[in-house]
Amino acid sequence: MYEMKKAFKNVAIIGKYNASEMRDSILEMCTFLASEQVTVFLETATASHCNLSGFATLGMDEIGEKVDLAVVLGGDGTMLSVARKLADSHIPLIGVNQGRVGFLTDINSANMLDDMRHLLAGDYTTEERILLNATVFRDGQQIMTGRAMNDVVINKAGMSRLIELEVNIDGQFVHRQRSDGLILATPTGTTAYALSAGGPILHPTLDAITLVPICPHTLSNRPIAIHSNSKVEITLVHGDDAGVHLDGHLQLALLAGDQLLVQRDEKTVSLLHPIGHSHYDMLRQKLNWG
Amino acid sequence: MYEMKKAFKNVAIIGKYNASEMRDSILEMCTFLASEQVTVFLETATASHCNLSGFATLGMDEIGEKVDLAVVLGGDGTMLSVARKLADSHIPLIGVNQGRVGFLTDINSANMLDDMRHLLAGDYTTEERILLNATVFRDGQQIMTGRAMNDVVINKAGMSRLIELEVNIDGQFVHRQRSDGLILATPTGTTAYALSAGGPILHPTLDAITLVPICPHTLSNRPIAIHSNSKVEITLVHGDDAGVHLDGHLQLALLAGDQLLVQRDEKTVSLLHPIGHSHYDMLRQKLNWG
Amino acid sequence: MYEMKKAFKNVAIIGKYNASEMRDSILEMCTFLASEQVTVFLETATASHCNLSGFATLGMDEIGEKVDLAVVLGGDGTMLSVARKLADSHIPLIGVNQGRVGFLTDINSANMLDDMRHLLAGDYTTEERILLNATVFRDGQQIMTGRAMNDVVINKAGMSRLIELEVNIDGQFVHRQRSDGLILATPTGTTAYALSAGGPILHPTLDAITLVPICPHTLSNRPIAIHSNSKVEITLVHGDDAGVHLDGHLQLALLAGDQLLVQRDEKTVSLLHPIGHSHYDMLRQKLNWG
Amino acid sequence: MYEMKKAFKNVAIIGKYNASEMRDSILEMCTFLASEQVTVFLETATASHCNLSGFATLGMDEIGEKVDLAVVLGGDGTMLSVARKLADSHIPLIGVNQGRVGFLTDINSANMLDDMRHLLAGDYTTEERILLNATVFRDGQQIMTGRAMNDVVINKAGMSRLIELEVNIDGQFVHRQRSDGLILATPTGTTAYALSAGGPILHPTLDAITLVPICPHTLSNRPIAIHSNSKVEITLVHGDDAGVHLDGHLQLALLAGDQLLVQRDEKTVSLLHPIGHSHYDMLRQKLNWG
Repeated sequence: MYEMKKAFKNVAIIGKYNASEMRDSILEMCTFLASEQVTVFLETATASHCNLSGFATLGMDEIGEKVDLAVVLGGDGTMLSVARKLADSHIPLIGVNQGRVGFLTDINSANMLDDMRHLLAGDYTTEERILLNATVFRDGQQIMTGRAMNDVVINKAGMSRLIELEVNIDGQFVHRQRSDGLILATPTGTTAYALSAGGPILHPTLDAITLVPICPHTLSNRPIAIHSNSKVEITLVHGDDAGVHLDGHLQLALLAGDQLLVQRDEKTVSLLHPIGHSHYDMLRQKLNWG
Repeated sequence: MYEMKKAFKNVAIIGKYNASEMRDSILEMCTFLASEQVTVFLETATASHCNLSGFATLGMDEIGEKVDLAVVLGGDGTMLSVARKLADSHIPLIGVNQGRVGFLTDINSANMLDDMRHLLAGDYTTEERILLNATVFRDGQQIMTGRAMNDVVINKAGMSRLIELEVNIDGQFVHRQRSDGLILATPTGTTAYALSAGGPILHPTLDAITLVPICPHTLSNRPIAIHSNSKVEITLVHGDDAGVHLDGHLQLALLAGDQLLVQRDEKTVSLLHPIGHSHYDMLRQKLNWG
Repeated sequence: MYEMKKAFKNVAIIGKYNASEMRDSILEMCTFLASEQVTVFLETATASHCNLSGFATLGMDEIGEKVDLAVVLGGDGTMLSVARKLADSHIPLIGVNQGRVGFLTDINSANMLDDMRHLLAGDYTTEERILLNATVFRDGQQIMTGRAMNDVVINKAGMSRLIELEVNIDGQFVHRQRSDGLILATPTGTTAYALSAGGPILHPTLDAITLVPICPHTLSNRPIAIHSNSKVEITLVHGDDAGVHLDGHLQLALLAGDQLLVQRDEKTVSLLHPIGHSHYDMLRQKLNWG
Repeated sequence: MYEMKKAFKNVAIIGKYNASEMRDSILEMCTFLASEQVTVFLETATASHCNLSGFATLGMDEIGEKVDLAVVLGGDGTMLSVARKLADSHIPLIGVNQGRVGFLTDINSANMLDDMRHLLAGDYTTEERILLNATVFRDGQQIMTGRAMNDVVINKAGMSRLIELEVNIDGQFVHRQRSDGLILATPTGTTAYALSAGGPILHPTLDAITLVPICPHTLSNRPIAIHSNSKVEITLVHGDDAGVHLDGHLQLALLAGDQLLVQRDEKTVSLLHPIGHSHYDMLRQKLNWG
């Protein structure tokens, strides 16, 4: 999974949405990259929010076509959003946090120039993260499709007491479950909502998806992890007030009978890390271990 | 808590809402009680749904004034509803299930006449269960108040990713919690939703309330149990899409800044049990222990 | 539970076992108290370990008879040990930590003199904590009895795969449980081992004991909390390699058939706190809430 | 993972240890197989315990060399034991339970002849299960090595309060953990002890190992799952009363400083299932889902 890669010529800089407080870091990064003979493209909205001129700008759509690296300055939420948008192009991403390490943003802005210098010299590792693809069918018609990097969640909305789901995996009946909902998480997503709901932490190298019930009525309905090439089919049996969320964003209100199909997306996301990056260091720090 | 009580002269019979399938049991109960020189009152809606005439009927409001025992035929949901409605009158309740024991309905319809004969002879025990009182304040004005026998829940609705709550108990700051919500349960409610969310089981004799976070962001935010005479004040710090539920029924959509005050209600509910009833037998059966 | 109390004339100072590193704090405390016209008694072993002369010394047995306050410098383990030893005399205790707040030692050595000045002036609150009494019977004969402030644990020892216990409460059969063991904790003990095993946090004012199974075979065997006046009887049904622990110290190796009776001890422990002490502040700090 | 396989000529029959109550089933199986032109070998101890003569017998060592299928009549414990013993030969196994489905014994003795007829006709599926290999080093010397099909457990023994472990994975420091111990489970083992300790259920097709802490002191020390090709190194930092268990059997008492290395064994176990066998059916039945 880890291998050495080539250096980069065209680099996009993307900042957290509407985060003008990152103007200094973004400017510092752009200036540095330009001084390293890299062609810098500032994402259009970032340039606008931060009131930065003097760099070429590109919209998110064009970034996918024209650059060979995207540097994201922001938190995990920004990384998730950018990763989904650039997934088709499979451009590698590197995340720069503003002081507090994120699960996905492991470079600290305080020493980002050093880290970028190594990266430009080819000293980095690449890690592929899977995405989930979610599709909803109503009366046999597809009515929604989308991608998630963390999780696909089907849950009750405001009025319901609980919902009832039927879960089938690879055509095999698993169970009917009454609960507040069900989280389907990638390894990346196992440190997010799934963890709060009692799910395990899956290492990113694991070809797995975890299914974590939210407040299940049956106490033995414990989290399970299955191979990432499985097809998970979930039917909303009861509960007219339910929804589907991708990475925490509501996509669709569901009706009883709706079917949600979740499987690994054909695309993956390439995350770059500085040499010496350790997933366990990050877990230890984020989860206050020891 | 357990003591012997007097026999009963005026008894109300209340059936599950719209449950005409219980007509036979209800008729059998009414006929039996009449034969035992008890004055029987059939709850108006029950008489109507089951198409039963020949017995005096009373609305729920009148039942509280005119009877000294209410026999409830239905499940736990029916018991919760009746208990809240009759709480002001403090009329004792006894629950008859239709085959599957409930947490609150411990007489089985198959041998209910035997159990009722003992009860009329004064052979029974009485157990007092606490209720919670929930009040919501907005901009200093009370905008909702109500009772719950199981639980008061403040939780996110459909759109939110999570909500942030500030919890104070007896004027002391406890913490700010980001989660899907918070359950405040009576001992009665600890075998309901609170159990699914990871809460402990509190024995009914315990003068306690448990606070069970739903999918808390901070993993050490574990369930706590406090004295039932505590005043719990919860402020919705963030999250414009949240609600308050009493025994599973949505009461009110909340706005950021709203304050929810939860404390033990001044009223309690008297549950009658046959001699020999064991709370642990019921737990063992309902939770498939051993 | 909280009330104002009288000031103190004879005070014992007890240090952590063999903790010569606390010599400075202990000396500072002794000197201060002496200057406040308090008669100071240094616990014999503390005086010896810290090589402190010039103060009257008393053994633990005499302390119970001659002082009206014991100041404990050390951690929670020291407090547990002292509390058990002085329980018969019901002398109030106050705990001084060496920098890191403990669940039971809430005065910090850095400002202990200020806190002690208030305490001597009568500005403090008193909190009674329950103790558990554990007795083991073999073939009808009592073979062990002891006290615990945190917990009584019956668990498998090294060789066993799991043990089987039969639990009865107040003469009522609860269940047979196969597990690694069972923790019976006071509210004080709910932030110790019981918490690691998945138990709830009980507020000290709660008249309750919690039973927390350790890795139970049946997933619905969840922690329960019962009234502290309950009598819990546990029989080791299977497992010839089991033991009983009081506050973490092995007391006795058990044989199949042995019976462990656990109930609230007739003695309680009085803990003194500075005015303004908040149990929730301590929980928040110790558990990294928020 | 699932594919059609050839039929079998030489079959060994192995019964639960000392289980003469299975004599009838074993005899029925032997007689049936003989009638199907299969050469039957009865495991020596099984023949002796069940007092069965008239069939050729083989010791466990010879079975590995001479047969191409082993039929195991017993429970999951018997299967685990046989699987470890025959792992070197990689002979496929099929498990026959005596009435209650096991996680590993999915043929019911009541219709075992039908199932065996299909199996002899080539109608079955094969599933490979990983094993773990555990090795202990003391002062640089290997002092123990062994295999487990369910789990390798390092835990405190009778006297310890808790132990402290340092965990490294693939040369990367994970954390120091204070707990009752640590379970390393194969997917097969995730429905055994690891489940009781709060671990996730891993599907057998997952190339994964899960690490489940037993009553960890730090509440965020949650179960993690890593790739099965990882090398896990655990050092007993503190705790002179600890042990290593393979599939529940104590192998070795540990000393502080001992190092336990756990990794996937080079051998796997082939389990045969009737066509139509569903892992989820088995989970649903064993865990009382729905």
